[in-house]
Amino acid sequence: MAQKFILICCALLAGLLARTQENNSLNLMPVPVLLTAHPGRVDIGEGFRVSVRGKPDRRIFAEASRFVRRLSERTGIFLDHQGFVSPSDSSPSAALLIQIRRPGSLKLGEDESYSLESGGGQVILSAVTDIGAIRGLETLLQLVSADEKGYFFPGLSIRDYPRFAWRGLLLDVALHFMPVDQIKRTLDGMACVKMNVLHLHLCNDQGFRVESRRFPRLQQVASDGVYYTQQEIRELVAYASQRGIRIVPEFVVPAHTTAILTAYPQWASVKRKYSLQRYFGVFDPVMDPTNERLYPFLDTLFSEMASLFPDAYFHIGGDENTGKDWQSEPHIRRFMAERGMKSFMDLQTYFNRRLLPIIEKNGKTMMGWDEILQPGVPKQIVIQSWRGNASFYGSLRQGYRAILSYGYYIDLIQPASYHYQNDPIPDSAALSAQEQQRVLGGEATMWSELVSPLTVDSRIWPRTAAIAERLWSPRSVTDTEDMYRRLDIISLGLEALGLRHRTYKQVLLRQLAHGDDTRSLEVLSDLIEPLKIYERNQGDTMYTVFSPLTKLADLASPDQPQPRIFSREVDSFLLHPSPALRQLLWDKLNCWKQNDALFQRLLLGAPVLREAAGLSRNLSLLAGAGLDAMEALDAGRKMDGAWLEQQLLVAARARQQGGRCELQVVDAVQRLIERAAR
Amino acid sequence: MAQKFILICCALLAGLLARTQENNSLNLMPVPVLLTAHPGRVDIGEGFRVSVRGKPDRRIFAEASRFVRRLSERTGIFLDHQGFVSPSDSSPSAALLIQIRRPGSLKLGEDESYSLESGGGQVILSAVTDIGAIRGLETLLQLVSADEKGYFFPGLSIRDYPRFAWRGLLLDVALHFMPVDQIKRTLDGMACVKMNVLHLHLCNDQGFRVESRRFPRLQQVASDGVYYTQQEIRELVAYASQRGIRIVPEFVVPAHTTAILTAYPQWASVKRKYSLQRYFGVFDPVMDPTNERLYPFLDTLFSEMASLFPDAYFHIGGDENTGKDWQSEPHIRRFMAERGMKSFMDLQTYFNRRLLPIIEKNGKTMMGWDEILQPGVPKQIVIQSWRGNASFYGSLRQGYRAILSYGYYIDLIQPASYHYQNDPIPDSAALSAQEQQRVLGGEATMWSELVSPLTVDSRIWPRTAAIAERLWSPRSVTDTEDMYRRLDIISLGLEALGLRHRTYKQVLLRQLAHGDDTRSLEVLSDLIEPLKIYERNQGDTMYTVFSPLTKLADLASPDQPQPRIFSREVDSFLLHPSPALRQLLWDKLNCWKQNDALFQRLLLGAPVLREAAGLSRNLSLLAGAGLDAMEALDAGRKMDGAWLEQQLLVAARARQQGGRCELQVVDAVQRLIERAAR
Repeated sequence: MAQKFILICCALLAGLLARTQENNSLNLMPVPVLLTAHPGRVDIGEGFRVSVRGKPDRRIFAEASRFVRRLSERTGIFLDHQGFVSPSDSSPSAALLIQIRRPGSLKLGEDESYSLESGGGQVILSAVTDIGAIRGLETLLQLVSADEKGYFFPGLSIRDYPRFAWRGLLLDVALHFMPVDQIKRTLDGMACVKMNVLHLHLCNDQGFRVESRRFPRLQQVASDGVYYTQQEIRELVAYASQRGIRIVPEFVVPAHTTAILTAYPQWASVKRKYSLQRYFGVFDPVMDPTNERLYPFLDTLFSEMASLFPDAYFHIGGDENTGKDWQSEPHIRRFMAERGMKSFMDLQTYFNRRLLPIIEKNGKTMMGWDEILQPGVPKQIVIQSWRGNASFYGSLRQGYRAILSYGYYIDLIQPASYHYQNDPIPDSAALSAQEQQRVLGGEATMWSELVSPLTVDSRIWPRTAAIAERLWSPRSVTDTEDMYRRLDIISLGLEALGLRHRTYKQVLLRQLAHGDDTRSLEVLSDLIEPLKIYERNQGDTMYTVFSPLTKLADLASPDQPQPRIFSREVDSFLLHPSPALRQLLWDKLNCWKQNDALFQRLLLGAPVLREAAGLSRNLSLLAGAGLDAMEALDAGRKMDGAWLEQQLLVAARARQQGGRCELQVVDAVQRLIERAAR
Repeated sequence: MAQKFILICCALLAGLLARTQENNSLNLMPVPVLLTAHPGRVDIGEGFRVSVRGKPDRRIFAEASRFVRRLSERTGIFLDHQGFVSPSDSSPSAALLIQIRRPGSLKLGEDESYSLESGGGQVILSAVTDIGAIRGLETLLQLVSADEKGYFFPGLSIRDYPRFAWRGLLLDVALHFMPVDQIKRTLDGMACVKMNVLHLHLCNDQGFRVESRRFPRLQQVASDGVYYTQQEIRELVAYASQRGIRIVPEFVVPAHTTAILTAYPQWASVKRKYSLQRYFGVFDPVMDPTNERLYPFLDTLFSEMASLFPDAYFHIGGDENTGKDWQSEPHIRRFMAERGMKSFMDLQTYFNRRLLPIIEKNGKTMMGWDEILQPGVPKQIVIQSWRGNASFYGSLRQGYRAILSYGYYIDLIQPASYHYQNDPIPDSAALSAQEQQRVLGGEATMWSELVSPLTVDSRIWPRTAAIAERLWSPRSVTDTEDMYRRLDIISLGLEALGLRHRTYKQVLLRQLAHGDDTRSLEVLSDLIEPLKIYERNQGDTMYTVFSPLTKLADLASPDQPQPRIFSREVDSFLLHPSPALRQLLWDKLNCWKQNDALFQRLLLGAPVLREAAGLSRNLSLLAGAGLDAMEALDAGRKMDGAWLEQQLLVAARARQQGGRCELQVVDAVQRLIERAAR
């Protein structure tokens, strides 16, 4: 029934989307299920007031007050006479009337639907729960429009609800610690695009990041002094709850536990000296599941941690166990043999089964990565899939509920379009209706090997907004061009919330250039991206937790707009070579060609940039080749094979990395070159 | 003896300063007492290590580790094999050897001297205390230099120590609350320029900002929910201590107490309903000093607060009591009459004398603003002077120790040069040696009526670095041009520490312009400053605590470099009209003239900027007048009186405020105009 309704809505939406693109004032992200534009408008003036009616949880009052503040900051209008929205603000004629049927509860599958009606001098936001209303307030802020007459909400009707119940972001605070204020601004960003789960990856080989009162050595000797106090955890949970976001904690066991074993080596499989891991990767240290005393320890630790996080889900990791430290220990091999275990995965399953009652007695559902899914694992656990679609569909077919992270690894510097196209339930999967229902949703993963508090926002935003849309909006919303158009707009809204995905570049530009004249570096850095997938940290040997993350590859951000725009322009030009387009491309290529001379001068006082010298020179040569090609095209002259070979060599050289980055405009210039020789 | 030594150093310094200006690699701020350049250098490479010898407090190890991290981030060099500097790092041949005689203690007058010797492959930093060494580490980071061969420390000898023991910044977190991370980055900035006192103004009419366990209504009903928990206060104290910075708390009484009286109205002089003040200014609510039960309350509250702040000084405010609520109450008038008190200031002195034993039994020295200095106030208190030099010198002559804030009110948007010229002990004061010794130092004051966490950094930095230099460097260091040269450099270093005084502009530009094309707004906003002194918030009636601080006057920052540079260029041109300078000025004026057309177009979609329409138009007309004047000068044509009158009218109009801002280039253009008619 619900699905049928969705189908109808999707059909309607196709037409609506076209209208959205026509009307620039409708720049919503994620796209709502159903939107109908009306002719009217609701002006925003000093007298704009908000009232709340119905039976909400009290979180709506703080959020409505925050809405007033944001509206005031966005428009510059002094809405001073409503400092805070309180239960006494309940006039049915307020400019914004929020109607809520019942208090929302922060749990998987809670009703997040809302509807908006604006026109006739009033906006009415109706929702079953306050959490739905909070989603609607974000939509409303995205609808703030302006013309010569002033600021207003356009007249429209919206009916909206999420496609998936679990729309998450994993933030890894173990590999590089993230301070509380970074997490808070991340939560603000998530709320802006209607995400509802922050998955905190709280320990790994490099550190344990939560204060434990039962086992204080965890923070004392296994955190380098950077961890969250229990009060801070409570503060974060409250902050997230205020925005209708659950926090799911992950404490990874039995592998990736060098930090825990540094504090408490008695739980290790192999007796050796443990100290915090300074490199990133997969390592052998692992807990000893044959040690009976391990389980009371984990019971105490996990019960303490579970008490800090009210959410019903508790993630135990379970990934990337090499098994070597188990295979090398005779007592462990003996334990396995006695129980007929054939592989170390059987032993891990044994371990997981021992954990399950510990997690469940704390009232939690256990979650883990793909690897925990082995024969014999109980069906009530939830699988988080990272190793590929096959394992995702496999877990669904076996009857497990699962969330998809494969294809949403935002740390791998892939473009938003790639993540956007990654549907959790594609046609090709041919999942049954039951299997589809077991798809809880998805999670973007921000692993923190190569990010600092300064750069991390630029790895999360704005790309994660595209994933948020994938998980909220109807499946039919797949127009990549329109996604990018709206992404550029939402990026500004995210910045206004305090995110630093744009401003951090100015900081690094000035620091790297050792002064104000950052132009040549800016030109270069706008055309490069860090090496993708796992290439930047080759062989996991180049970076440690102490390495500076203030260099070229940190300045370069994923999914750069300029190469994307240039590539589109080249294609247009090759199709219809207009003079205006020709001039535009010529100016760009010419600027890139000239840039190297300025850049080489900059290097004299900024040795840190020497690693980019080759990139800059190659860009200059590549642009020169592009200009030659354009001249040939202008003259209608066909270039010969020798020339082509020569220029393709230039292009090939321009693909070489420099400073762990690569140029993003080579393909487009190569298309110009190839056309000139055709 | 010490003074004689200072005199000798100052004489030496005059020569050194000249050299500093010649050698751009020496950009220190504050300028050290004694600096001698050597020919050698110490290269910074991957093998660079730090060791510590002697008897330091352990804070040096965390600071030395932070130094390694900052050096690595600044240079991009992977100094990975020294993650943390620990007591086991004590090799006498390390590239940086830190030698410390004894543990420093965080108190007024502690030894902060240090010396640096670099050359021969090693830097030796020697200090009596670890606090002195921390000052030296900041100098060293400012000395990082680069050439084609790489990064290095130049060869030199430095001997350095502060002129004043109290070099403070008052941060008002009551009028607008500042989150913990804002205070942390402020502390980082202060350490960078060797300031050593953060004075936190923790309560006022608008809110009480510290959790009290004894009187929880203070945070529950008198903070709007934004306050520091006691754990956060302890964290901030530790963070500051780590950088050798004392935190002095201020709890203002008996006036400016609307927040306390909102929570506990029983202590008010006048029985009425109290609620948090939403405006800024001076108000009548005041505690009732005739109520004997008030003193046990203050004893309990101040003892609890004093226990959170280990520093030996405790500030009780005492300013801006209107006295009206005392004069209107018969029982208070009777109390005064019975005791022969002639004015309400006598009553306030009575109140202060009652407070003194409460403060002192907590082991603290009492401090207050000018107003507390009335006949009969004990000599052991410290006066913070804000009402003028007369009251400052007066307190010194009466035998009080005092710190100067008059002339250091950075919230009033005056230029760094103004603050820089404000010497606490000018010749004109003719203070005796004893009186001079009572000058503890000075404090910049960041009152927060009109700043938010987003904008506050731009009101503090970089101007406060000029005040820091005034309070640290020898009195003879007064070259304003050289101060500005170094200020521009230190501004970059402050940004690298995490301060947002530059990047916040990009955020507001994009938000105000409602998109990416911010150019015309940028041109305009670089030429304006917010109205100075108390003009922006006319009559204290325009802003409340809820008003948006995201508008033109927030984007405009104090002491803009472009008008300063333009003014200098105009003067040079009028003196020696070179063709290059003529072209430069012509291009600038032309750009300003053209800008209005772009800006008016921007307004169509950004009504928030309409308040700047007049400014932009007036800038265009002013620039046009300037271009006319230049043409006349080019042609050697003298313009007539009618023309001059006309253009002066244009200039006069260009002085009108818009959006609570004013153009900063009118004087310079007017000089061009007047010259053309001469």
